[in-house]
Amino acid sequence: MKRIGVIANPKRPHAADVFDRLVRKANELGWKLFADEASAQLIPSATVIGFDQFASTVDVLLPMGGDGTVLFCSKLLDESEIPILGINLGSLGFLTGVSEDSMEAAMDALDAGTCIKETRTVAQCVAPSGTIRRALNDAVIGFGGSSRIVTLDLAIDGAPATSYSCDGLIVCTPTGSTGHSLSTGGPILQPGCSAFGISVVCPHTLSNRPLVIPDSSTIEVTVQNSHKALLLSVDGQDVEELTTGDIVRITRSENPAIFLYPPDYSYFSVLRRKLHWRGSNL
Amino acid sequence: MKRIGVIANPKRPHAADVFDRLVRKANELGWKLFADEASAQLIPSATVIGFDQFASTVDVLLPMGGDGTVLFCSKLLDESEIPILGINLGSLGFLTGVSEDSMEAAMDALDAGTCIKETRTVAQCVAPSGTIRRALNDAVIGFGGSSRIVTLDLAIDGAPATSYSCDGLIVCTPTGSTGHSLSTGGPILQPGCSAFGISVVCPHTLSNRPLVIPDSSTIEVTVQNSHKALLLSVDGQDVEELTTGDIVRITRSENPAIFLYPPDYSYFSVLRRKLHWRGSNL
Amino acid sequence: MKRIGVIANPKRPHAADVFDRLVRKANELGWKLFADEASAQLIPSATVIGFDQFASTVDVLLPMGGDGTVLFCSKLLDESEIPILGINLGSLGFLTGVSEDSMEAAMDALDAGTCIKETRTVAQCVAPSGTIRRALNDAVIGFGGSSRIVTLDLAIDGAPATSYSCDGLIVCTPTGSTGHSLSTGGPILQPGCSAFGISVVCPHTLSNRPLVIPDSSTIEVTVQNSHKALLLSVDGQDVEELTTGDIVRITRSENPAIFLYPPDYSYFSVLRRKLHWRGSNL
Amino acid sequence: MKRIGVIANPKRPHAADVFDRLVRKANELGWKLFADEASAQLIPSATVIGFDQFASTVDVLLPMGGDGTVLFCSKLLDESEIPILGINLGSLGFLTGVSEDSMEAAMDALDAGTCIKETRTVAQCVAPSGTIRRALNDAVIGFGGSSRIVTLDLAIDGAPATSYSCDGLIVCTPTGSTGHSLSTGGPILQPGCSAFGISVVCPHTLSNRPLVIPDSSTIEVTVQNSHKALLLSVDGQDVEELTTGDIVRITRSENPAIFLYPPDYSYFSVLRRKLHWRGSNL
Repeated sequence: MKRIGVIANPKRPHAADVFDRLVRKANELGWKLFADEASAQLIPSATVIGFDQFASTVDVLLPMGGDGTVLFCSKLLDESEIPILGINLGSLGFLTGVSEDSMEAAMDALDAGTCIKETRTVAQCVAPSGTIRRALNDAVIGFGGSSRIVTLDLAIDGAPATSYSCDGLIVCTPTGSTGHSLSTGGPILQPGCSAFGISVVCPHTLSNRPLVIPDSSTIEVTVQNSHKALLLSVDGQDVEELTTGDIVRITRSENPAIFLYPPDYSYFSVLRRKLHWRGSNL
Repeated sequence: MKRIGVIANPKRPHAADVFDRLVRKANELGWKLFADEASAQLIPSATVIGFDQFASTVDVLLPMGGDGTVLFCSKLLDESEIPILGINLGSLGFLTGVSEDSMEAAMDALDAGTCIKETRTVAQCVAPSGTIRRALNDAVIGFGGSSRIVTLDLAIDGAPATSYSCDGLIVCTPTGSTGHSLSTGGPILQPGCSAFGISVVCPHTLSNRPLVIPDSSTIEVTVQNSHKALLLSVDGQDVEELTTGDIVRITRSENPAIFLYPPDYSYFSVLRRKLHWRGSNL
Repeated sequence: MKRIGVIANPKRPHAADVFDRLVRKANELGWKLFADEASAQLIPSATVIGFDQFASTVDVLLPMGGDGTVLFCSKLLDESEIPILGINLGSLGFLTGVSEDSMEAAMDALDAGTCIKETRTVAQCVAPSGTIRRALNDAVIGFGGSSRIVTLDLAIDGAPATSYSCDGLIVCTPTGSTGHSLSTGGPILQPGCSAFGISVVCPHTLSNRPLVIPDSSTIEVTVQNSHKALLLSVDGQDVEELTTGDIVRITRSENPAIFLYPPDYSYFSVLRRKLHWRGSNL
Repeated sequence: MKRIGVIANPKRPHAADVFDRLVRKANELGWKLFADEASAQLIPSATVIGFDQFASTVDVLLPMGGDGTVLFCSKLLDESEIPILGINLGSLGFLTGVSEDSMEAAMDALDAGTCIKETRTVAQCVAPSGTIRRALNDAVIGFGGSSRIVTLDLAIDGAPATSYSCDGLIVCTPTGSTGHSLSTGGPILQPGCSAFGISVVCPHTLSNRPLVIPDSSTIEVTVQNSHKALLLSVDGQDVEELTTGDIVRITRSENPAIFLYPPDYSYFSVLRRKLHWRGSNL
């Protein structure tokens, strides 16, 4: 019998009966459901467990919501490598590959073991204070309470790469390449790439270009000169302020995130629908 | 007899004798020199006047320093349209078209009336508080103490153009097109263009592109949604914080800035030397 | 009584009764219609004239079709500055600002003199052979039967700007800035800008950036080195082949194109609909 | 005793004594040298062999020239995986990591086995005619004798990704990412990335962005619509013409190229020197 966790974002728009359908199908498949207290309000038959118990309790976790819900679940599972199958409530997401309509088909596929399993690079970001954060998307250095330009030194595997006069810098995983990095002109890295993207916010030079480096690299960003407190944020969560001399170190986490997708999932189809990415106006 | 103002940045590196040479040549040409108190330490023969007296006293103003010194002088002259001939101390600037070496030749050209006269669009920026600032380079909206995305509405001549999900927005004059705007991927506008550039910092869409619009346009940027205090800065000076509902209005100032350049001045030559702009790696 | 020319592209998809509606409204307004032989098949009440007679016969010309039909009409009118009011058959165009649905309203506005009149810069392109072409959109240098890189020298107002190692170069008017130039990363120039855009196809350098220069400039592009025959095309029409030493000269035509738009026309609205230009994915 | 091949480009500028120094050092290390007929003019002590004998004769191949010489040698070695240590005659190259000055030090490192060994992805490109080419840099589809736009369909691992209205398309290896692809705005892929870059020449849409995909992917480009003969070129060599319906298939070659670099080689240092890549104008 499969032990399946469900964590729902109840604020997301969703069809009234989606949780009833979930329970009915789970019963049919003989799954045992676990849910956090809030989600259990929507899924009364589920066993309530604390957020900290999912990693040690379930075989697979089903976030029901949007990409934010998947990010939350990914952090929860931490280094456990328990697979995630995201079910989208509302508009289709990058990480939630299953629409409400096709929920039952995806559950059948999960039960039959026919889901596509994607192993996604997670970055490990060590802040100057010693705080360690897992980044499924990106680590962003920038912002701050003045318009002054800053100088950030980039070193890769211990060797200086260049020194940026800029407003900020982004290190992203392939998963995060369609997020903040994309808005700086960065490339789209398909999730299967074992790579990090490094892109810069407002580099004060004509001759910059985004970098793609193997995810086996060690990336160090040193705040070489800043007249203001910069911000380090990881996956959209502000971590701490940075000042001159601070060093942020990013490597690949030893524990990737495991995402499941239904057999007919197409990354490029999601790109087209979510980002309107395409090669033609027609 | 020409009445020439001199405002020097004494902190800039400069040849020991450059001010002696200036005085000697001015005497030869029969100029009367005026300087602020600090600059007069370097040019003892100059008549000392207050910063607020230059606009009503001199025929031409000679900033001696870098682009920052020219920006300072431009603000000082405000709407007076008194021409500026920038002499560079240290490395050549965009606005300081005369190197130390060619100072005497430029003074001769100024005296003979053979300098190139460039009329440069200045933007007038009205902040939500009612504060009005002249912008020779740009007005920048962005930064702030969190990494949250903001929504800025752009209207041109009263009609909505688009709504940006972004980190910031820059309206630049042609003079400012080689500054912050350039770092977002904006085009280079030759100073003679009667246009404003509008570029966006980290637009969260693939289908953005910088805009160039006639400088007769009225640009209004409304902070439609911001979870943080944004910053409005003009020509690199922070003006005030912006919050949801605030409107920044930018138009062309009725009084342009007047820059003088020696007859052999080449804009593209400066582009190549200052920005390393070029069409080839060779 | 207004003398109105009509040139239709009969191949464009259109509602069956659009030409009947045109005639009915023209009668109501007391217009006299003129059409070329093919278009007169659709508008039997029109007086047939040759393509070369429109410039000397009509007060206003109504292209009915797509942007290509407007380009054709613009070439036909040559230097006559007769206004053009483009009526779109099929999907909305940049130059055809009137949809089939709002044709009568636009005709009323034309009759009442309430249309917006846009004066659009036209470039004059002198090919090495001496052939002169008017360019409403752009002059493109590039392509050719090998993948070899070429060297193109750019001079502006007689002064060298830079030398490009590249695959091609585009000089566009504001009207053409949303065409081929845009695909190289060039900016969007609102039609009211008195400027040319210069952008480069595959410049072999990191430090290139599109240029925007006043349309009073003289642009000269010299094929400095090419191992293949390049192609010069103007507004999508191939003009002639270029080889090493050839010079293409581009200036503003003394005769702009005059476009009419209905009073509610919005350039940015067309940008959003035709190019999907926008500041947000939402 | 090491068997070392030498293939020199005698046309490259080089110090008069560089080949004498090579021979002297090779004797000291007890190497046996092999050279093609032309190179043997410069290295009389070498055993002359035909180009087709290098792969079966030598342990390591030393191209002496520029990147073109390395590309030539790489093709020569084909699938043999014999390591290449490029010695630069003239200005430093991407592939020739050893300068004339440090030739002896590099030869010592090669003899001592302390060189850095880089395994570089090579693409295998199957042209419509069935011709198979190894691409160390890139496969480029484009050009042609008219300015007409073309439609290219991209499929990855058998699934349609998008359809491009464009002038051309480039698939590059990490090694080739600093070549033609870079000129379209593509990212820089560090050689250790197991990825291909896909970038587009003049995509007629705002919402395109370069792709980076795992090099385990199968890339198929179909000429869906072209009014002209396009050109397929691989590593700068024109392969054949393409017309509507033609399919180009690109996969990773089973045999990578093996490059050796001296222990102090820095990829980013070469980026900075060769491409002037950097994060600041200062």
